[in-house]
Amino acid sequence: MSDLKHSGHQKIEWVSKHMKLLNHIQSMGNTLTGLKIGMSIHLEAKTAYLAITLKKLGADVIVTGCNPLSTQDDVAEALKDFGISVHAKRTESEKEYFSFLHKILDYKPDLILDDGADLTVLAHTERTEVLERLKGVSEETTTGVRRLKNLEKNGKLRIPVIAVNNAKMKFMFDNRYGTGQSTLDSIMRNTNLLIAGKNVLVAGYGWCGRGIAMRAHGLGAKVMVSEVDPIKAVEAIMDGFEVGRIENLAPKADFIITATGVCNILNADVIRNLKDGVVLANAGHFNVEIPMEIIERIAEEKYEIRKNVTCYKIDGKDIFVIGQGRLVNLAAADGHPVEIMDISFALQALSLIYLSRNFERLENRVYEYPEELDKKVAQLKLESMGIGIDTLTHEQDEYLNKF
Amino acid sequence: MSDLKHSGHQKIEWVSKHMKLLNHIQSMGNTLTGLKIGMSIHLEAKTAYLAITLKKLGADVIVTGCNPLSTQDDVAEALKDFGISVHAKRTESEKEYFSFLHKILDYKPDLILDDGADLTVLAHTERTEVLERLKGVSEETTTGVRRLKNLEKNGKLRIPVIAVNNAKMKFMFDNRYGTGQSTLDSIMRNTNLLIAGKNVLVAGYGWCGRGIAMRAHGLGAKVMVSEVDPIKAVEAIMDGFEVGRIENLAPKADFIITATGVCNILNADVIRNLKDGVVLANAGHFNVEIPMEIIERIAEEKYEIRKNVTCYKIDGKDIFVIGQGRLVNLAAADGHPVEIMDISFALQALSLIYLSRNFERLENRVYEYPEELDKKVAQLKLESMGIGIDTLTHEQDEYLNKF
Amino acid sequence: MSDLKHSGHQKIEWVSKHMKLLNHIQSMGNTLTGLKIGMSIHLEAKTAYLAITLKKLGADVIVTGCNPLSTQDDVAEALKDFGISVHAKRTESEKEYFSFLHKILDYKPDLILDDGADLTVLAHTERTEVLERLKGVSEETTTGVRRLKNLEKNGKLRIPVIAVNNAKMKFMFDNRYGTGQSTLDSIMRNTNLLIAGKNVLVAGYGWCGRGIAMRAHGLGAKVMVSEVDPIKAVEAIMDGFEVGRIENLAPKADFIITATGVCNILNADVIRNLKDGVVLANAGHFNVEIPMEIIERIAEEKYEIRKNVTCYKIDGKDIFVIGQGRLVNLAAADGHPVEIMDISFALQALSLIYLSRNFERLENRVYEYPEELDKKVAQLKLESMGIGIDTLTHEQDEYLNKF
Amino acid sequence: MSDLKHSGHQKIEWVSKHMKLLNHIQSMGNTLTGLKIGMSIHLEAKTAYLAITLKKLGADVIVTGCNPLSTQDDVAEALKDFGISVHAKRTESEKEYFSFLHKILDYKPDLILDDGADLTVLAHTERTEVLERLKGVSEETTTGVRRLKNLEKNGKLRIPVIAVNNAKMKFMFDNRYGTGQSTLDSIMRNTNLLIAGKNVLVAGYGWCGRGIAMRAHGLGAKVMVSEVDPIKAVEAIMDGFEVGRIENLAPKADFIITATGVCNILNADVIRNLKDGVVLANAGHFNVEIPMEIIERIAEEKYEIRKNVTCYKIDGKDIFVIGQGRLVNLAAADGHPVEIMDISFALQALSLIYLSRNFERLENRVYEYPEELDKKVAQLKLESMGIGIDTLTHEQDEYLNKF
Repeated sequence: MSDLKHSGHQKIEWVSKHMKLLNHIQSMGNTLTGLKIGMSIHLEAKTAYLAITLKKLGADVIVTGCNPLSTQDDVAEALKDFGISVHAKRTESEKEYFSFLHKILDYKPDLILDDGADLTVLAHTERTEVLERLKGVSEETTTGVRRLKNLEKNGKLRIPVIAVNNAKMKFMFDNRYGTGQSTLDSIMRNTNLLIAGKNVLVAGYGWCGRGIAMRAHGLGAKVMVSEVDPIKAVEAIMDGFEVGRIENLAPKADFIITATGVCNILNADVIRNLKDGVVLANAGHFNVEIPMEIIERIAEEKYEIRKNVTCYKIDGKDIFVIGQGRLVNLAAADGHPVEIMDISFALQALSLIYLSRNFERLENRVYEYPEELDKKVAQLKLESMGIGIDTLTHEQDEYLNKF
Repeated sequence: MSDLKHSGHQKIEWVSKHMKLLNHIQSMGNTLTGLKIGMSIHLEAKTAYLAITLKKLGADVIVTGCNPLSTQDDVAEALKDFGISVHAKRTESEKEYFSFLHKILDYKPDLILDDGADLTVLAHTERTEVLERLKGVSEETTTGVRRLKNLEKNGKLRIPVIAVNNAKMKFMFDNRYGTGQSTLDSIMRNTNLLIAGKNVLVAGYGWCGRGIAMRAHGLGAKVMVSEVDPIKAVEAIMDGFEVGRIENLAPKADFIITATGVCNILNADVIRNLKDGVVLANAGHFNVEIPMEIIERIAEEKYEIRKNVTCYKIDGKDIFVIGQGRLVNLAAADGHPVEIMDISFALQALSLIYLSRNFERLENRVYEYPEELDKKVAQLKLESMGIGIDTLTHEQDEYLNKF
Repeated sequence: MSDLKHSGHQKIEWVSKHMKLLNHIQSMGNTLTGLKIGMSIHLEAKTAYLAITLKKLGADVIVTGCNPLSTQDDVAEALKDFGISVHAKRTESEKEYFSFLHKILDYKPDLILDDGADLTVLAHTERTEVLERLKGVSEETTTGVRRLKNLEKNGKLRIPVIAVNNAKMKFMFDNRYGTGQSTLDSIMRNTNLLIAGKNVLVAGYGWCGRGIAMRAHGLGAKVMVSEVDPIKAVEAIMDGFEVGRIENLAPKADFIITATGVCNILNADVIRNLKDGVVLANAGHFNVEIPMEIIERIAEEKYEIRKNVTCYKIDGKDIFVIGQGRLVNLAAADGHPVEIMDISFALQALSLIYLSRNFERLENRVYEYPEELDKKVAQLKLESMGIGIDTLTHEQDEYLNKF
Repeated sequence: MSDLKHSGHQKIEWVSKHMKLLNHIQSMGNTLTGLKIGMSIHLEAKTAYLAITLKKLGADVIVTGCNPLSTQDDVAEALKDFGISVHAKRTESEKEYFSFLHKILDYKPDLILDDGADLTVLAHTERTEVLERLKGVSEETTTGVRRLKNLEKNGKLRIPVIAVNNAKMKFMFDNRYGTGQSTLDSIMRNTNLLIAGKNVLVAGYGWCGRGIAMRAHGLGAKVMVSEVDPIKAVEAIMDGFEVGRIENLAPKADFIITATGVCNILNADVIRNLKDGVVLANAGHFNVEIPMEIIERIAEEKYEIRKNVTCYKIDGKDIFVIGQGRLVNLAAADGHPVEIMDISFALQALSLIYLSRNFERLENRVYEYPEELDKKVAQLKLESMGIGIDTLTHEQDEYLNKF
């Protein structure tokens, strides 16, 4: 076995020992037999193990990445040994990335598991012929759900979608504890800089931003938050963080971490006012939050100063960008912790089974995640940890129904 | 002026300096002229200042408490000087408490501001004649909203209700930071016991329970959580707390704090297994969470050992109960922090204005809090603190609408 | 029994149930028989129980306060029923306070238990005749130890002193967790204001300041710290707090809490720059940290706005001072948590026994607390909680002695 | 330039931008001219930059590692370009490691900068001929200081030693915030496992253990602590952690991290009782804390399951060990954060300058770090961050000298 492939197998074995919900689901038997599933997802060990799980449930699985820099080539190589079709490569080329998406659609999948909605949007624009066979989509992220809801709003959505992102077991855990830990992990391992006592600016106080702020704070940082939603802004204040306009906060920051879901968080003026030595990292799905175009344009010089870290000289100051502004936990580290993805992917597996059983009665719209499946995953998680909880007594149940 | 009244006036002056949103709303002019508003609410300085605010907006205001032990007599006395009808007294008698509710209804109010829904339920059961004139109800609490939704589910709700509790600016702040701080404040001031290093069991991990757990943890406790909802249970685990069945956790606890919204959190067996010296406190709306009846029945002896603290001897052990199992922050302290109630009551005032303008087109159901008013209160709060936040650029707005 | 006395007895009974180390020490028998012990200490239930403990060990105990506002009259009254001579009253008069100190010295004590060193300094200045019989002093506080070391440095100390404050079990716990909780408890109960999201300035980052900062942070505040020691300043930064010059930090503060051990933390210019509505509280031993003289001088108006809170109008702004600048946890609340004082007073009791046995071979200097007694109290504390810890294996012990 | 060397130069450039105290010290000029300095220290970018700094101050610098696995070969290669003699290689062989130590001594250094004291102990045992020229030693770690104090206690120490570890600016920061962050960073990057909600057992609650516990807690873990010192045990309890005997705590742990300074923290019985899937990591200086010999002996099977992670099968369970039980932040990651080592190495540089100037009047003993240098480094740190602090007024200074 090649070293590359061996490394991939090792990684998959490692996560298999920690993804207890997927292991449980694998034991559920042939629930997906005869279905072709196209997956576009950050291709590393945990997603590989999801693909393997779907395969064990009887599906034909075809996999590509969902972001140019987030594919791990060793894992892609190893995954082929499990009877899964893999079209993916770590690359910096958007064009090559899209060619892989097209390859997935060439298979005419029955179900799509999407992460960011690139594959589904492609199916609705350039590749509408695949819609004929397509029965449903299961979407992983806040960004993807937003895009598909826009598609629905514009009357263009032509298949049922399950918003896995909107499951409580997803956004409360994956977006918060997952993004929180993995973003800070990536920043620490890629910079070896101290977090304690530093000014960390978190742009966006959604579930991802909350998680990042919580962990930066847990590592000793002074956290600042920028927001456009006044309610979230008040929450950030009550959580003990400094809140203000980004042009006022950014010049004080030692680290700026974006998690907004929108583009161009900093404009050229703000960039010119940043501290010498500031580190920029993006935790949002697309590489549009840190305005790389502006930075590339106004920088006097640019070079790689540490693995995954680019130094831009702007007005004589050093501006450091990790992972080229792509989501930092995946482009420059190993993504979310294993156990978090185990929960998210249990939701995904159950979502695909649900779609395969119910697609005929579903409309072409974005559905919230079914509540009973959400609770089921929570219950499985508790069981996997050996933790029992209370149930309502008959008397309490009656009490709750009184007025 | 009597000492009692003087003390009440002092307290009202104190909160008036810190309720900046209400001060802002007072400047909005005669928006409630000609309306009779019946309030049933924990009668202390902050609620008094809400009553004064409604009066300044032109309303006729009639006030009573919403819980036997939570009325502060000095404030009740002072409030009369502001031209407000007050029928309330700190009492231990349920009967006297209900007689006050009846008095409020005697006025045939146009609008009800309710806290726990006792007044509204009374209007729907024994006093249906008042429904004729009643235009709407604004309900403050989780418990009250649950009761009114049950009324609606049973087809018995006969007026429109705004669930103020369900405003984000309410439950994210009042239930969490408000209950969190005031519950721990009350426990500390009534016991003078150390929190750091203690085992604190929080029953219920809703917004109130989260707040209590957060503050107990912030004061150095080891926190344990009991829950019936598996999703909330997993969240409590990820927040670093110990989760399990109450019969397993309670015997380790030094403090047990209930915030469940249901009754009889401990049964007789669990009570007999409690630690010698355990302190019990309830943070839920009704005094049903700590099973006082069971405790009274099985105790060998009972006496007041410190102001607001009763010692029960059970199997030779000391079980201490604060405030007779009534909600501990109000029965044995000053309730939520002033600035928190300022937010909640700004929501209330806007809710009443909204009802007065829209009641004719509203159906007899429980409405969620209007989102635009929710954001408006958040915006007012930011302005009162002099904090500006970002707004989406045109480019960002467009980005958010793309698919 | 009078209500006052009854209330004092209740309080003493309450603490007796929670001071398990003192209860253990009471069982050690007549180790102090025949000795007269003069105590000057914040006279409330916990110190009362220390006095009772010393009495049970056979000593003659005479007690007064150590700070005009910190004596609780009900406890003073009840304490007399235990055969203890009490000369103390809550008062605002320095003169009356000093007359009580003189009364204690009139008894010609063998040992002094001092808190702040007023009694010992008096014995070295105006009342040197008592030194003849005096065998030793056990001093509780940072401030008192500093004063007695100055006495020693000036060649004037004429008795051996044990610096109880310098026991690890004292300053790591009493000064930090004790001051931390009780200071914030007092501020919350006396203001009913929200801590979360507020700017809290802690002046001084010694053990007391660290504790206050830790608890303010645990309650959701943004904490700022002023210091004169650069090492402590760097520590405060690494702990995530904002550090700077007090004239720059104070104008942003919602609360200012002093714990420096020095005088006049704010000058007139800084006071005039404070925020409208700022709350000032002192956690240091003497009422010199908040410059009350300056505030009184420059204020246009002054009145009590809430129990224990004085409102000063300065340049049209409200400046609120709790407890007249006296140490806020004792002047306006119940002092440190019971279990913390149980530890500190176990140290005190062992210190007095140690002095009684060793005074003849001790020199007239300030001694560090004996390490074996320090560890013994820690061991007793662990036992009282039923917690066992590891001991070094023989192999580990050998390892530690290798080079 | 080779890729290896290029990578080393990159890493050194990166740290040079963040080690502002060393940059400041480099500007102090030729204070070490003519002196040969032998360094035994974890050879990575930050220590390389210390060597470069000493070189710039005029010294002849000879460098080796201080631990077989902690040398980074790319940095070692690059360092030679700065005119520094380097004898070091990442290796698993103790023998090769010791051969490098001997090489350093062959140069007959004037001063030794030691980390763990291997070099100094060698000079006192097998290589006593080098003592003739040796003027002093500057020791970095708790472990090294303990060993040299044992040497002193046995009357065998033959040169003056400065205990850099005992500088406040060292142990309060390097041992706590440095070890804390880098240990958790290493565990996260090497396992990709979730910390939130996990049971983390920290063995030892000295400054390193406190830092590890603080960061594990900040990442959402439930922390357990084992200790042999009762005072530290009580502190861990008050910090909110569970304390107990290691045989009772270890079976509940998901991660066990050792920071005790002693050997064999777990015996065979405890190891057999560990959870399936537990992760073991050592943060102490020597690889004696996790009993690798016992584990190797009782394991049925052993293989590398992830880079730097070994899986041992014991009684059918998986026991994972990171970095072979060597200190996990250096053997399997990049060591302490850059800014922390900047402080520690500023202390080191000043210590060496101090030794070079004062060695003739120093005795052969272990000296505490000079307080004025300690404060100077703190002051430099504050200046490098642009933070000013207060100074005592004349009035305050007088106050502090009163009794």
